[in-house]
Amino acid sequence: MSSHHIVRDDQEPALIIANGAACHPELLGQLLEWSPLVIVLDSAIERVMELDVKVDVLLGDFDRGFDVEKYQTSQYPLEIVHTPDQNKTDLEKALDYLIARKIPAVNVVWATGRRADHTITNLTNIVRYRNLIKIVILDDHSKIFLLPNKFEKWYTAGTPISLIPIGVVNGIYSKNLVYPLQNDTLTMGYRTGSSNEVAHDGIVTINHNDGDLLLMECID
Amino acid sequence: MSSHHIVRDDQEPALIIANGAACHPELLGQLLEWSPLVIVLDSAIERVMELDVKVDVLLGDFDRGFDVEKYQTSQYPLEIVHTPDQNKTDLEKALDYLIARKIPAVNVVWATGRRADHTITNLTNIVRYRNLIKIVILDDHSKIFLLPNKFEKWYTAGTPISLIPIGVVNGIYSKNLVYPLQNDTLTMGYRTGSSNEVAHDGIVTINHNDGDLLLMECID
Repeated sequence: MSSHHIVRDDQEPALIIANGAACHPELLGQLLEWSPLVIVLDSAIERVMELDVKVDVLLGDFDRGFDVEKYQTSQYPLEIVHTPDQNKTDLEKALDYLIARKIPAVNVVWATGRRADHTITNLTNIVRYRNLIKIVILDDHSKIFLLPNKFEKWYTAGTPISLIPIGVVNGIYSKNLVYPLQNDTLTMGYRTGSSNEVAHDGIVTINHNDGDLLLMECID
Repeated sequence: MSSHHIVRDDQEPALIIANGAACHPELLGQLLEWSPLVIVLDSAIERVMELDVKVDVLLGDFDRGFDVEKYQTSQYPLEIVHTPDQNKTDLEKALDYLIARKIPAVNVVWATGRRADHTITNLTNIVRYRNLIKIVILDDHSKIFLLPNKFEKWYTAGTPISLIPIGVVNGIYSKNLVYPLQNDTLTMGYRTGSSNEVAHDGIVTINHNDGDLLLMECID
């Protein structure tokens, strides 16, 4: 679906296809319409090959011994990035790769579902990339990103907004949410801002002083 | 599948069926074999009704206006617990209900998958129930529980063990893991113990001084 006759300026968000549950093909198709640089993580390539997707980079430790050469032929040209470092997840390695290429933004799919340890690690480890690369994780029910200290965005009334603190987040103020926050502290496991919603059509403002705060736009 | 001719002593773990992605029927069947007290959360009852499961308690705010009476007939006897409190999730309300009934342990299914905000909230909010009720969250790929400060369990070599800190966890020591921890600190988002594994058949020991540490046994 991604056309490689276009000269890419690497300013569009790249696309990482991780190794969790597959999303709906329509979501994948929408993200591929922008002809992004496509990175697939490790053995997810086996499932990606069943779809009509041109892959640019295959990255992983390949420790399950599959045949990398096979994909080099069918996906030519394909860059293979072998990353044996056991101290990082494949998603972290892919983000490091994009940062080294000075790509400023990335969408990530297939990062949730299946193993709960991978899901929670993928969702929470994006906080360490603050100021390095803009990351949005998407699945069929969710759009997730790290909030800057000052955040404003236009939403329609009733949009579900969940604020998930990774650790402790202090000094949170909101405007235009049904359950407003006024110098509040959220603490993962103890007090979170899940299942809030937008009060009126218009700008939502969410500011916080310190800590890592994820915004999740989720639908049933 | 659960027989209600048995006099229950309420010492067996109860079973909560939450409102995320359904698990494999075989996992549900295994958990129902012990004839547990079965609690279904809110509109999940619609999906549960398609399975051959006797439900004991239906709990929720029922704010989407479905017909509770209908289930009272088909699931007779069925206790309906109406919990309109917007400050707690349905899972928290169900745990509070079990604690009030002095039930010491519960398995939770359908708590992961679908919406990422619900998944991460369900997985992390169990830490506040330390010392109140023993909780195990299960899905097709994962078994998740909060570690006591001193933990020992027999595992076979190679079993994947992920240690996920909810916030900051200090003074972690392990025995019989491939990547050992020695007075280590884990911090969600920055340093987690995901994707460790058991070194040899035998007892695994994981101790920690303070903080909330989840253990996740996950398989692909």
